[in-house]
Amino acid sequence: MQYKDYSSQQLFEERDALRQKFEEIKSMGLKLNMARGVPSPDQLSLSLSMLDILYREADCTAEDGTDCRNYGVMDGIPECKRLMADMLGVTPDMVMIGGNSSLNMMFDTISCFMNKPVVPGCPAWGLVPDRKFLCPVPGYDRHFGVTEYFDFEMIPVPMDKNGPIMDVVEELVKDPAVKGMWCVPKYSNPSGISYSDEVVRRIAALKPAAKDFRVMWDNAYCIHDLGDETDELLNIFEECEKTGNIDLPIEFCSTSKITFPGSGVAAMAASENNMRIIKNKYKFQTIGYDKLNMLRHVRFFGDFEGMKAHMKKHADVLRPRFEIVVNKLDENLKDYGIVSFNRPRGGYFVCVDVMDGTAKRVVELCKEAGVNLTGAGATYPYGKDPRDSNIRIAPSFPSLEDLSKAMDVFCVCARLAAVEKLTA
Amino acid sequence: MQYKDYSSQQLFEERDALRQKFEEIKSMGLKLNMARGVPSPDQLSLSLSMLDILYREADCTAEDGTDCRNYGVMDGIPECKRLMADMLGVTPDMVMIGGNSSLNMMFDTISCFMNKPVVPGCPAWGLVPDRKFLCPVPGYDRHFGVTEYFDFEMIPVPMDKNGPIMDVVEELVKDPAVKGMWCVPKYSNPSGISYSDEVVRRIAALKPAAKDFRVMWDNAYCIHDLGDETDELLNIFEECEKTGNIDLPIEFCSTSKITFPGSGVAAMAASENNMRIIKNKYKFQTIGYDKLNMLRHVRFFGDFEGMKAHMKKHADVLRPRFEIVVNKLDENLKDYGIVSFNRPRGGYFVCVDVMDGTAKRVVELCKEAGVNLTGAGATYPYGKDPRDSNIRIAPSFPSLEDLSKAMDVFCVCARLAAVEKLTA
Repeated sequence: MQYKDYSSQQLFEERDALRQKFEEIKSMGLKLNMARGVPSPDQLSLSLSMLDILYREADCTAEDGTDCRNYGVMDGIPECKRLMADMLGVTPDMVMIGGNSSLNMMFDTISCFMNKPVVPGCPAWGLVPDRKFLCPVPGYDRHFGVTEYFDFEMIPVPMDKNGPIMDVVEELVKDPAVKGMWCVPKYSNPSGISYSDEVVRRIAALKPAAKDFRVMWDNAYCIHDLGDETDELLNIFEECEKTGNIDLPIEFCSTSKITFPGSGVAAMAASENNMRIIKNKYKFQTIGYDKLNMLRHVRFFGDFEGMKAHMKKHADVLRPRFEIVVNKLDENLKDYGIVSFNRPRGGYFVCVDVMDGTAKRVVELCKEAGVNLTGAGATYPYGKDPRDSNIRIAPSFPSLEDLSKAMDVFCVCARLAAVEKLTA
Repeated sequence: MQYKDYSSQQLFEERDALRQKFEEIKSMGLKLNMARGVPSPDQLSLSLSMLDILYREADCTAEDGTDCRNYGVMDGIPECKRLMADMLGVTPDMVMIGGNSSLNMMFDTISCFMNKPVVPGCPAWGLVPDRKFLCPVPGYDRHFGVTEYFDFEMIPVPMDKNGPIMDVVEELVKDPAVKGMWCVPKYSNPSGISYSDEVVRRIAALKPAAKDFRVMWDNAYCIHDLGDETDELLNIFEECEKTGNIDLPIEFCSTSKITFPGSGVAAMAASENNMRIIKNKYKFQTIGYDKLNMLRHVRFFGDFEGMKAHMKKHADVLRPRFEIVVNKLDENLKDYGIVSFNRPRGGYFVCVDVMDGTAKRVVELCKEAGVNLTGAGATYPYGKDPRDSNIRIAPSFPSLEDLSKAMDVFCVCARLAAVEKLTA
């Protein structure tokens, strides 16, 4: 029976029962973490042989003869550009290899555009006092952090299962102060959905008032499938080529969730015009990123096929974790009519909407019971979830046993917060 | 006999003889490089065992329990902060570990200050249209590149064997638009000199009109001695503590010329006030830099003593190269009275002043003869050496044999350019 059909007395009885259950859980002194999309130790072990691959092969020479131990090569060694180009779905000449973090490349790109005009004749973004950025919600808190740091007004754009609501986007880009949009187009963080063909085509067809409007296409989960049934995403550059909008998107990816987070390789792809501005920054910013680590990755994977094969091993570790989350939500919460959630085919998150006005309370209760979740609201600009209902669950890190326990706690807390609200 | 004492006829005969010699050299088809301060393969081999050290030790856990293979730790693992703090001469709490490049950290610091106030109440540097930066000359071209990129007017400050001429600096900092100064205080790039105690103390005692004036203290060669006779540099933070100027300096270093250039570890140190601004940027810019590489470095060196012992091996490789350069200049050029040069006790460069008005021509002739040098003027802001006399020689990369040949070419070219000028 759904809570909305409970009598007042039933609700009070339920509340008391749940409170007792909650106290029992608390007394267990759990310490579990579902806060961030962090690979588990089992996943990290999959890449261990990377750690001596260069030593074993006793050769640190790139295919063009570059000694990867020494200085130089600003945009990456050719074989790594090729590997990451395949991952990004572009040609190697469009690619720049960075350090260990695609977030860092995104930050640096926005920072670059803050100080230098993106398009000749347009003012640098830093000179536009009422600058704005579109933020499909729920979205990635660290994206929002970057645009908040640079004092953009962030405009939330609602999403549905096909991606951002494009009617809204098309209206908002009529404002010349709107300079860009964050996108995680595949297995979106946190909703897990992938942009439909129509959404990608409408993004590619945008005619923003700002000539220097840019789409930050963070393809973080481009090959991060959980099983054989996968989402398919249109290639943004191919679509933009058709619409004459090739300067619109800037694409990012990394191997952080493929090899070692923090010791992976990040990459970006952009049109010739965009890359000219961006490389003119990198030229002053660095002599070049870690070529030994690039070579390590290329030697470890061989090629993109090797990388995709490696991702199947990750999927085998991750799949049972996602199943636990979804099954627990199904078993323990569905009947009460207080949650809705996705069943993602990839990515790192299960996105749960608890009863309106209870997300903060659920996270608080979980914390009290020893289960750490991403802060409620974190998936919205300025941390403000207008309905206070969205919670991001990251099932990757805990062991299966811990995850199972953590989800039991979560379900009790979601119920308790709901009946607390209904009996308030 | 010095060229200035040659008769006109002697000069013409000398010119013709040198031209013939130059043609002979050209016909040898040399391809030698003394352009950049790049370690030689022999030096790179000194660190080879770093490439499998983490695999051999089968443990990627930092001393505080952090799994270095995973996400996290924004400012570096404790043991790496300690190691780099020793190198920087500060306490670990003042240190932030970055990626592979101290240049990148310097660029990011200037970029940070362009967008955010360095001192509450002061405008961000980007909002100061006539912003200026002091550039001791000759200096490091990539420093000048950073401030040029961010549209600072660069003010050259002459140096002598003690460092920047402080009378000039003290006068210039009375202008509130002067926001900072580049310094390579030890074995300066390119002059090889180290700042005297008096110069360091006068820098520490500066009272610039701009409250947000900052000294970029690039201690790139802090432990890069060539032999047992070494230069000693005062500790800038200790001196600034005495003068109540602790927010003045921001110090940088890296292991680029200790382990692998491009795959080293960079670090910076700053006061609490400065670090607050800087870390508030990094917090948005990254989840953390490459902890596996930090751990690799700590395991390889053990501690700072281990790092210094490692530097003695570098010195053994470098010392004979510097001796060749200095001896060749002594033997082949001194008598003609057309060069002056330093005899550095460390660092990566020999700084040569050829006859005024001939540096560009010398570099051009060398190039024609197959010897690549740093562009003449590169050691000055905007590439403008007012006397056209300064040439930076980087002896580290070529083999001893190649270097000897390259220096013979250089000496012939320096003489030819001089007599060309004297006979013009």
